[in-house]
Amino acid sequence: MMDEISVRFLDCFKKDLNNPVFIEGLPGIGQVGKLVAEYMIHVLGAEKVGEITSIYFPPQVILDEKGLARLVRNELYLYQSGTRDILFLVGDHQSTSGEGHYLLADCYCGIAEEVRARRIYTLGGFGVGHLVNEPRVLGAMNRPELRGEIEAAGVTFQRDDSGGAIIGAAGLMLALSAQREMEAVCLMGETSGYIVDPMAAASVLAVLSKLIDVPVDPTRLNDRASEMEKAIEGFVESEKMKDEELSYIG
Amino acid sequence: MMDEISVRFLDCFKKDLNNPVFIEGLPGIGQVGKLVAEYMIHVLGAEKVGEITSIYFPPQVILDEKGLARLVRNELYLYQSGTRDILFLVGDHQSTSGEGHYLLADCYCGIAEEVRARRIYTLGGFGVGHLVNEPRVLGAMNRPELRGEIEAAGVTFQRDDSGGAIIGAAGLMLALSAQREMEAVCLMGETSGYIVDPMAAASVLAVLSKLIDVPVDPTRLNDRASEMEKAIEGFVESEKMKDEELSYIG
Amino acid sequence: MMDEISVRFLDCFKKDLNNPVFIEGLPGIGQVGKLVAEYMIHVLGAEKVGEITSIYFPPQVILDEKGLARLVRNELYLYQSGTRDILFLVGDHQSTSGEGHYLLADCYCGIAEEVRARRIYTLGGFGVGHLVNEPRVLGAMNRPELRGEIEAAGVTFQRDDSGGAIIGAAGLMLALSAQREMEAVCLMGETSGYIVDPMAAASVLAVLSKLIDVPVDPTRLNDRASEMEKAIEGFVESEKMKDEELSYIG
Amino acid sequence: MMDEISVRFLDCFKKDLNNPVFIEGLPGIGQVGKLVAEYMIHVLGAEKVGEITSIYFPPQVILDEKGLARLVRNELYLYQSGTRDILFLVGDHQSTSGEGHYLLADCYCGIAEEVRARRIYTLGGFGVGHLVNEPRVLGAMNRPELRGEIEAAGVTFQRDDSGGAIIGAAGLMLALSAQREMEAVCLMGETSGYIVDPMAAASVLAVLSKLIDVPVDPTRLNDRASEMEKAIEGFVESEKMKDEELSYIG
Repeated sequence: MMDEISVRFLDCFKKDLNNPVFIEGLPGIGQVGKLVAEYMIHVLGAEKVGEITSIYFPPQVILDEKGLARLVRNELYLYQSGTRDILFLVGDHQSTSGEGHYLLADCYCGIAEEVRARRIYTLGGFGVGHLVNEPRVLGAMNRPELRGEIEAAGVTFQRDDSGGAIIGAAGLMLALSAQREMEAVCLMGETSGYIVDPMAAASVLAVLSKLIDVPVDPTRLNDRASEMEKAIEGFVESEKMKDEELSYIG
Repeated sequence: MMDEISVRFLDCFKKDLNNPVFIEGLPGIGQVGKLVAEYMIHVLGAEKVGEITSIYFPPQVILDEKGLARLVRNELYLYQSGTRDILFLVGDHQSTSGEGHYLLADCYCGIAEEVRARRIYTLGGFGVGHLVNEPRVLGAMNRPELRGEIEAAGVTFQRDDSGGAIIGAAGLMLALSAQREMEAVCLMGETSGYIVDPMAAASVLAVLSKLIDVPVDPTRLNDRASEMEKAIEGFVESEKMKDEELSYIG
Repeated sequence: MMDEISVRFLDCFKKDLNNPVFIEGLPGIGQVGKLVAEYMIHVLGAEKVGEITSIYFPPQVILDEKGLARLVRNELYLYQSGTRDILFLVGDHQSTSGEGHYLLADCYCGIAEEVRARRIYTLGGFGVGHLVNEPRVLGAMNRPELRGEIEAAGVTFQRDDSGGAIIGAAGLMLALSAQREMEAVCLMGETSGYIVDPMAAASVLAVLSKLIDVPVDPTRLNDRASEMEKAIEGFVESEKMKDEELSYIG
Repeated sequence: MMDEISVRFLDCFKKDLNNPVFIEGLPGIGQVGKLVAEYMIHVLGAEKVGEITSIYFPPQVILDEKGLARLVRNELYLYQSGTRDILFLVGDHQSTSGEGHYLLADCYCGIAEEVRARRIYTLGGFGVGHLVNEPRVLGAMNRPELRGEIEAAGVTFQRDDSGGAIIGAAGLMLALSAQREMEAVCLMGETSGYIVDPMAAASVLAVLSKLIDVPVDPTRLNDRASEMEKAIEGFVESEKMKDEELSYIG
């Protein structure tokens, strides 16, 4: 029988990292976490060091533009600098079952522990159900003493719904890493939840970059966010005009 | 691989209890069992002694008002007195799968056996689909000889549907504890099933308090029940007035 | 962890049976198999010898009229005579999952093998989607050479749909017992599929009684079937009258 | 407990094959893969050498026209010639669960590895949502260097949707065989996805026959495709006439 979850590191990968943090950016609400992590991997030139496959992922393969097939997977990318290494977790999908969510999130925490990550950052969107002009970044963490530092970086904890829940890896990793005595912080960009949202991603990137003290040039993500903002404004404008036309008729 | 079910007792917890009973009050119909158990924990000043987490719970974390994340969990609280100790089981959720329901309920029975509980009480609501003025408490048990004692405490066994079923932990614990040769009783407060129901909870509390011979001041639960009763009366009254107005029109 | 499937025989049960057959009558289409097996148990005075519980059954307990709770279960009943013993399998429910269906059906075949059953009979309904006046009994088996004997007992193999499938224990036991080199026959009474159907059950009983050479007084089942037949005729008649009345209006 | 997946080879089967390829043609979109593989088995006179059953298949038995029951299964057929042996995988169903899809596909790859297959071909339909006049054959593979050879045989890689996914065994076997260092190619005939499609199957057969260098007389499959083509033309024609009639009325 094949393993339920399989983690493969590339031979190049040495687990002895320099002051590392672990950043999770898997698919989720508004694809916010995915956008941030993949953008950082691209801009920082992080290199792929590992792959995770699992029977809890959807039972399909993904084709590249040349017709080459590969399993649905999650990937690990490593960025190394003189002062701060980053291990990124990105990928195609999260688990299709509740039990798989737990087992995979615990596996991810195990990897973070193995590389002795100083902290885990999980990234996501915070769906509010309407368009957001200046998306805030909401926070959660697994130790109360982390809050001051996070707030100082511009994160808010004022949710309209008191309490609340975080579903999937971004949430579970907070709690499962606590059992391994690791620090973890979740950053969630406010988003409508209806679209892939680079604006929310730009907000999260700004905060995260400050927190991990690794400068990341946000230009291209901001450009993409501006384009989307204009597109949405155009759409809203045209909807308003339709309403006005209708009121002439009425 | 992480455990499917994980039980953690706090260090303070000594399993050598004094004439103990085990009270289950997990979420369910009308949240009746949850209301009763949490109220008793509060009024009696019971202390937390353990936690249960499981891959069969929903795959999410719950945030407190400060943004601190924790796994979905069930909790154990202990009340100790000179004559009667009580171990309470309360929590966020029940299992998301049928198989998980069985495995968790059996785990709970194992805990009750470990502390040598004299009896298990499982609490719940009995949904009747309409508002109930003076909710009765219906009973079920895992040994026929328990019935007399339960009836004497004010519990009725006259269900409109003969037979019937009890779904989830409140039901399964009755039967799975029988296999461990433990006594178990289920108390269900009549409730519409549409709302969180403190009136049904107050009825269950009165009976349970008598059965375990532990006085619990019901004042605040009764107050909450009275408030809801008035709110409902007001609502029903205003609906009637609408009907009368409509009959003038008609 | 509790067992996925648990089989408990009563102490009174001796597995050394006399020329035994195994009869499965679990819930299914029109409850036909259940009606036949439970009727035979009642009329023949078969005695309970075992119980099967499983995490693949629905996660609930069933209450008797006195409020006594028990797990959802399947039961084994034994009828003993000078020439032919019968082990009956009846119960509350079948599996809630596909995997559970396989594991339970294989467990049932294991029991039949353990008592060295000469043959397994699985009973069920054959849903045709409309009322049936004189329900035929359709057959299936796990060895071609059994067909002649079954047809001689009044079973037909002329299905309107060539081929077809049998879902659940009644089907799986045919195939899984073949792997244990046991004979198995499935008898299906034609039924609308909309109602609990004693007429279909009476047809199956007549055939089965002949095949196992155990006379079973069918009077009370036939009476129940007649009553239902009259009730249905009355209903059909009244519907016709409504149609006629409508045609007067039209 | 029965095995989750069970593979049984007939005694006649010797695993020492001559230059073998493995061809998967399980049920899927337009039943294209199934049509091709079953047609080849028939025309080449391949012989059955094995069976696979699993608790991940639907929990039912399938009856033949004589009432003989068998488990839902997948089957292995072997064609042997002087220069090229072929092991075919065909069957009734694929897995009912995501996890089962992975475990079964990995099991199939294990069989291909066991017989030292030079290459795996997985066959399927490529659903386009509309009728296709001259169905193309789209390709995917698990090694980039295979593309040239496949294109030379008439396969296209120009999908309207760049990238994309292949669900089920036809996809998973590509990726899971790569982990065993085996070559694998997927051939997908364009099909509406609404009907069992012999036209798409004929296109796939032509390409596959060339790739494996085993001539397969396509006459009867082409005949069936022509018949269906005419039936569809007739249908489309009659629909057009209805439209014209309607336009006279209009």
